[in-house]
Amino acid sequence: MTFYAQCAAAWQHHQSLLCVGLDPDPAQLPDALLADGASHAAIEAFCRGIIEATAPHCCAFKPQIAYFAAVGAEVVLERLAHWVRQAYPHHLWILDSKRGDIGSTAERYATEAYTRFQAHAVTLSPYMGADSLAPFLRHAERGVFLLCRTSNPGGNDLQMLPLGGEHAGLRLFEKVASEVHHRPDWRGHDQSGLVVGATYPDELASVRALAPEAPLLVPGIGAQGGDLAAVLAAGRTSEGGLLINASRSILYASKGNDWQAAAAAAARSLTKDMQ
Amino acid sequence: MTFYAQCAAAWQHHQSLLCVGLDPDPAQLPDALLADGASHAAIEAFCRGIIEATAPHCCAFKPQIAYFAAVGAEVVLERLAHWVRQAYPHHLWILDSKRGDIGSTAERYATEAYTRFQAHAVTLSPYMGADSLAPFLRHAERGVFLLCRTSNPGGNDLQMLPLGGEHAGLRLFEKVASEVHHRPDWRGHDQSGLVVGATYPDELASVRALAPEAPLLVPGIGAQGGDLAAVLAAGRTSEGGLLINASRSILYASKGNDWQAAAAAAARSLTKDMQ
Repeated sequence: MTFYAQCAAAWQHHQSLLCVGLDPDPAQLPDALLADGASHAAIEAFCRGIIEATAPHCCAFKPQIAYFAAVGAEVVLERLAHWVRQAYPHHLWILDSKRGDIGSTAERYATEAYTRFQAHAVTLSPYMGADSLAPFLRHAERGVFLLCRTSNPGGNDLQMLPLGGEHAGLRLFEKVASEVHHRPDWRGHDQSGLVVGATYPDELASVRALAPEAPLLVPGIGAQGGDLAAVLAAGRTSEGGLLINASRSILYASKGNDWQAAAAAAARSLTKDMQ
Repeated sequence: MTFYAQCAAAWQHHQSLLCVGLDPDPAQLPDALLADGASHAAIEAFCRGIIEATAPHCCAFKPQIAYFAAVGAEVVLERLAHWVRQAYPHHLWILDSKRGDIGSTAERYATEAYTRFQAHAVTLSPYMGADSLAPFLRHAERGVFLLCRTSNPGGNDLQMLPLGGEHAGLRLFEKVASEVHHRPDWRGHDQSGLVVGATYPDELASVRALAPEAPLLVPGIGAQGGDLAAVLAAGRTSEGGLLINASRSILYASKGNDWQAAAAAAARSLTKDMQ
């Protein structure tokens, strides 16, 4: 099954567009888990607890590898991956690592994402072009999400630059969206989605127009202030089309003993709002 | 001391522009190290052996993290970092990880690079803009190398796009070089260098013209076929200006028992050619 089809199946199965981001910040873990400090065990218990609480209300999980790597906890992410892929076979598992390299190095990153951390898809930077995607796209049933229009202020620096010559009228991020739609070496066999921030719904609509079939991974709802209704209007398709990510607003809904219930309620509320 | 000054000190101390890339590919390790297969111990012994053999003939080492991450060997890279920073205090230690993210996630990646792996500098993608650099540039005595013009064919896809509007006349990679020279939030306090492939000396000259003071990390010599004389003519400055990286041509100069001597000879020969 192509990655596009896997997304469609997940949207259909869960009747949700919500992706829960796993950014386990030691400084923000629930008090009850910090008895021994922010240990690897605390990070693992937190992520498991969040996944168990929110699984009924989402279609995907997105671990952000930096939170594991900074504290040498890659082995925790390995265990979580093994467990999630067994326990939640209908959820998408997306590694957020924004890799980007070429040749044999890119092959190693594909091994990291798809084999070591068992991801259905991985986020990548498009800056190095098609041959930086090829080692990932050779995994026929896996996906990638290419950074396109990100939700941060600095996203303007390069992504919004107007192009000239034969591309006049397009901005850089629109060129990325266009390549994913048109070029087989960017799209693969329906494998490439795009990362588009929720804070720019007009630009999300532009991306959707240029790449009508690509799944869009949309961070920026919740803590970052994106407007959910505007995102849905700009990017939703008949199949779903969007993986709308929320991290902090779910993960840190409560630091008290009700942290799992609070996370579940936050996820349920977001999915309800999407329906 | 600023990172630019640290580069100048390394060029001066070693009288070399050579950076030895550490890409330990299990399939290519010397036969003598493979008695137990491509174990973590074999990877560590190989990297140590290469560093010991080539240190007299280079000014920097650049571990590529993907080769460690794909086999769960981050702890090997931690040990190597600790040892190198003690044993070779005058060499630069550059983490090649091409990270790129924002806010608290970027802070985690800065911790990964500068604390966990003790790097003087780390390679980053520029696609997410200034606020993706900020958490790194807050480490006043550390550096970053931003991808600018990469040595792979797909580097053309985005990097060579001509810009329009007020930036007409510049290509995207030239805009990156210009930002590093002009904008304090891209340059930091003399902290930002650029990655420019050896396979495009004309474009390297263009980068040098736009960013006359930035250290340039130049892969693509040796196995990738870049022309050393053309690179030197295009990018060298009175202080040095270039970290010319070679990986495979040094690492895999021999698979036999003479692998250290062969690596040393390859490094010595490259540094001689640069002089």
